[in-house]
Amino acid sequence: MSDTGEEVRGRRRGGGAEARRERRRAGSGTSLTYIKRNVPLYDPVGEEGLALIEANADTVLQEIGIEFRDDEEALTLWRQAGADIDGARVRFPRGLCRELLKTAPSSFTQHARNPARSVEIGGKATVFAPVYGPPFIRNLDEGRRYATIEDFRNFVKLAYTAPAIHHSGGTVCEPVDLPVNKRHYDMVYSHIRYSDKPFMGSVTHPQRAADSVAMAKLVFGEEFVDQNCVLINLINANSPMVFDETMLGALKVYARAGQACIVTPFILAGAMSPVTVAGTLTQVLAEVLAGAAFTQLIRPGAPVVFGCFASSISMQSGAPTFGTPEPTLVSYGAAQLARRLGIPFRTGGSLCASKVADAQAAYESANTLNSTVLAGTNFVLHAAGWLEGGLASGYEKFVMDCDQLAMQQRFCEGVDLSENGQAMDAIREVGPGSHYLGCAHTQANFETAFYRSTIADNNSYEQWLAEGEKRADERANDLWKKWLAEYEAPALDEGIDEALQDYMKRGKDSMPDAFA
Amino acid sequence: MSDTGEEVRGRRRGGGAEARRERRRAGSGTSLTYIKRNVPLYDPVGEEGLALIEANADTVLQEIGIEFRDDEEALTLWRQAGADIDGARVRFPRGLCRELLKTAPSSFTQHARNPARSVEIGGKATVFAPVYGPPFIRNLDEGRRYATIEDFRNFVKLAYTAPAIHHSGGTVCEPVDLPVNKRHYDMVYSHIRYSDKPFMGSVTHPQRAADSVAMAKLVFGEEFVDQNCVLINLINANSPMVFDETMLGALKVYARAGQACIVTPFILAGAMSPVTVAGTLTQVLAEVLAGAAFTQLIRPGAPVVFGCFASSISMQSGAPTFGTPEPTLVSYGAAQLARRLGIPFRTGGSLCASKVADAQAAYESANTLNSTVLAGTNFVLHAAGWLEGGLASGYEKFVMDCDQLAMQQRFCEGVDLSENGQAMDAIREVGPGSHYLGCAHTQANFETAFYRSTIADNNSYEQWLAEGEKRADERANDLWKKWLAEYEAPALDEGIDEALQDYMKRGKDSMPDAFA
Repeated sequence: MSDTGEEVRGRRRGGGAEARRERRRAGSGTSLTYIKRNVPLYDPVGEEGLALIEANADTVLQEIGIEFRDDEEALTLWRQAGADIDGARVRFPRGLCRELLKTAPSSFTQHARNPARSVEIGGKATVFAPVYGPPFIRNLDEGRRYATIEDFRNFVKLAYTAPAIHHSGGTVCEPVDLPVNKRHYDMVYSHIRYSDKPFMGSVTHPQRAADSVAMAKLVFGEEFVDQNCVLINLINANSPMVFDETMLGALKVYARAGQACIVTPFILAGAMSPVTVAGTLTQVLAEVLAGAAFTQLIRPGAPVVFGCFASSISMQSGAPTFGTPEPTLVSYGAAQLARRLGIPFRTGGSLCASKVADAQAAYESANTLNSTVLAGTNFVLHAAGWLEGGLASGYEKFVMDCDQLAMQQRFCEGVDLSENGQAMDAIREVGPGSHYLGCAHTQANFETAFYRSTIADNNSYEQWLAEGEKRADERANDLWKKWLAEYEAPALDEGIDEALQDYMKRGKDSMPDAFA
Repeated sequence: MSDTGEEVRGRRRGGGAEARRERRRAGSGTSLTYIKRNVPLYDPVGEEGLALIEANADTVLQEIGIEFRDDEEALTLWRQAGADIDGARVRFPRGLCRELLKTAPSSFTQHARNPARSVEIGGKATVFAPVYGPPFIRNLDEGRRYATIEDFRNFVKLAYTAPAIHHSGGTVCEPVDLPVNKRHYDMVYSHIRYSDKPFMGSVTHPQRAADSVAMAKLVFGEEFVDQNCVLINLINANSPMVFDETMLGALKVYARAGQACIVTPFILAGAMSPVTVAGTLTQVLAEVLAGAAFTQLIRPGAPVVFGCFASSISMQSGAPTFGTPEPTLVSYGAAQLARRLGIPFRTGGSLCASKVADAQAAYESANTLNSTVLAGTNFVLHAAGWLEGGLASGYEKFVMDCDQLAMQQRFCEGVDLSENGQAMDAIREVGPGSHYLGCAHTQANFETAFYRSTIADNNSYEQWLAEGEKRADERANDLWKKWLAEYEAPALDEGIDEALQDYMKRGKDSMPDAFA
């Protein structure tokens, strides 16, 4: 990890041209280390507003409370911690949750089986992970259809290939061809087998979370897993103000195992939260405070991330909308609240409501991604492939988004102020009325000067015509097929592979298939 | 203007729901006042970097100098001001240009013939103006073809209709069906006749600039024009480090008449400037300092804008690329330099290299627009309609971009921290496990809570299928036709109209047609 870290730092200072050339020669399979931001944050909410929202969130926790449903253990722990319990409703003395969160790390390492791919979650780091959750896939050849385990493997392979995807993610699509109670084995296994980037565990049942931890132990070793984060896991609140049995069950398994939980209010503002930005932020903060603090009741020091999934609903259709100004402000504000709380932050991605990889998809995704990055988001789920409000994983959309991620990564390097960056020699050499195309400075920096898009067509109009007037999604269709055709699996120790296969077989054989 | 200004300020404080509802009832013809930013700026370049670039720009001005070609008057004025003249080359004592620019206003009003449409250029104001310059148009019905005066009128009408376009712009497309030496009459007239928003004058010949001023005087009155800005005009440097006779001629006409010049280095980095961000910023600053200071030699106090057109060239094809990280950093940095210089700033827009209104166009345009807005850009040319590196004005692209502009305008209002914005009553009313769809707060804010896109499809997948699986550009095709069909020209005083017609006839009759 330190090698590649050095590489990124070198480039920031303008000394990494050679490293870039090397990556280019090596092709798309060469991964970039996670982003270490060298540009400032964008903080649109002022001190007054943040303090107001924090005070209001404390009032929500104190007066209204949060429900921890069907989990006696949770209620007992909260009672012992000093909260007021009324049925499933937990009311918190002002400041209790913040106090509990003091044991949570402000930043932590999630280890990958290839140490060069391990990522930092927190601080100035930003990690891009693929889309999570869609039951459908879409591509130009087949249109939209239910996803299969084959699609799942394909998206793992694409994420492995994409230079600016730093993480293999979790449910890159839902393999609905496999039994619902067994598919988690194949999903976790696919991340391990077809990638060497860090990945996410199953959260749909406490036993599936336990299986994820057990499989991780076969890869990393029992003791290493107990002392280090090797899984990061998505724990959604049932907004407004409810955590349910399933999510609490998974949270407890992971926190107890010392693995990371992303506590995320899944918000469609207007339905799960108030229709205003400040009101939504208040509820989001209250929910995260309660859920994240709970991880510290389970195991003080367990890594936990402040999650925020911000969308608003269309007041016409009730459907979620993305890339619009209000959720953008929610994401920015939540990032600021997370920093004040001192824990890492997750939001955004390349979100869109569009059914296809058209201009709507791109406008919405770019709006979301730009704000996600400038907010200093540490863990970016749905960074590539998201379509149709999360109902479909798009093959073309995936590689198009990856191109944007690589641009963001370059942007985060900031401005090179070295002598080479200042380029005074070039200005002196060229002088008025000439051009820079052939000058020594241009020749020296030619290959690495500008980000080269993998998708954009920057050719002449005539050449574009001659090549068939292709739209971006049509070029993307060629690219993901090329990536899959050229994919080569990273090596996996045979003993580990056998142990994983054996574990899965025993698990699968122990229960009948379930499909709902 | 103050009425509509109040309206915007009211909305920021959450009290403008009624104003929004009114605009919605009034339809798309209801214009928004220019943006008065209520969110902070994004400043990615640090103090150290900015000071370094400023010092380097002074070195460029002092050692290398800038050429003012084929303009004896310019050289004489510079000599008198204390510069060193060597042929066309002007070398400037350190600090001279900055000193001269102290007479330039930090902010000024450009008046529209409808006072409610006048705009502020500078400070916290952002003004969106349409695409400028393309010889071609593109739409889904006809593909790409040469533009005509009919297209020109159409884009003026679309800009008049678009709520978040605050300015009628200039060469919204090049009407190549008209003689090159006479078309400026019809262009200026179209802006006056078919819109009541502020507009731009002709810069392709000093006489055409003089005609633009003369026509403006027929509309606003001789004395008003002498004492107020009614035209803003695009003066491009011939980068690197040259101003040519045509641009200097137009600049002198406008500055002498007290009208605004946007002094803009037109940069394709790698060709017209060094391949690095800091090097490009150095040259841009040097060129703007020289060109902008020259306006103050012509008429101290004449409004002048720091312009920056930032692109990089594809190192494969030599074609310009847009929406990529390096030009984004250039735009941000130039905005910071302009603020330190104390004059208004122009950059960005919705720029793209894509030939069609596809995902590439949208990603690139959104990347450009997001940074343009967060940079605090005061005058945004090319805010809508730009395609193919500026070679084509796109009908569908125009209305798609307008949707994005309206979103940016909403974003710039920032977060409403009023009691209604905080929504504590809503959170109390709803409580855990319920939803906000029917609650009193949602009902009260229903119509104005979230920005409603004019282009995005947020319907269910099934409804989208039933409606023909339309892409965003296909929906945009319907929208621009609707806008043109529903367009109604603003009233124009008959006497003024006759005077304009008469002026144009005399001008056209005075010379033979030229087509090259």
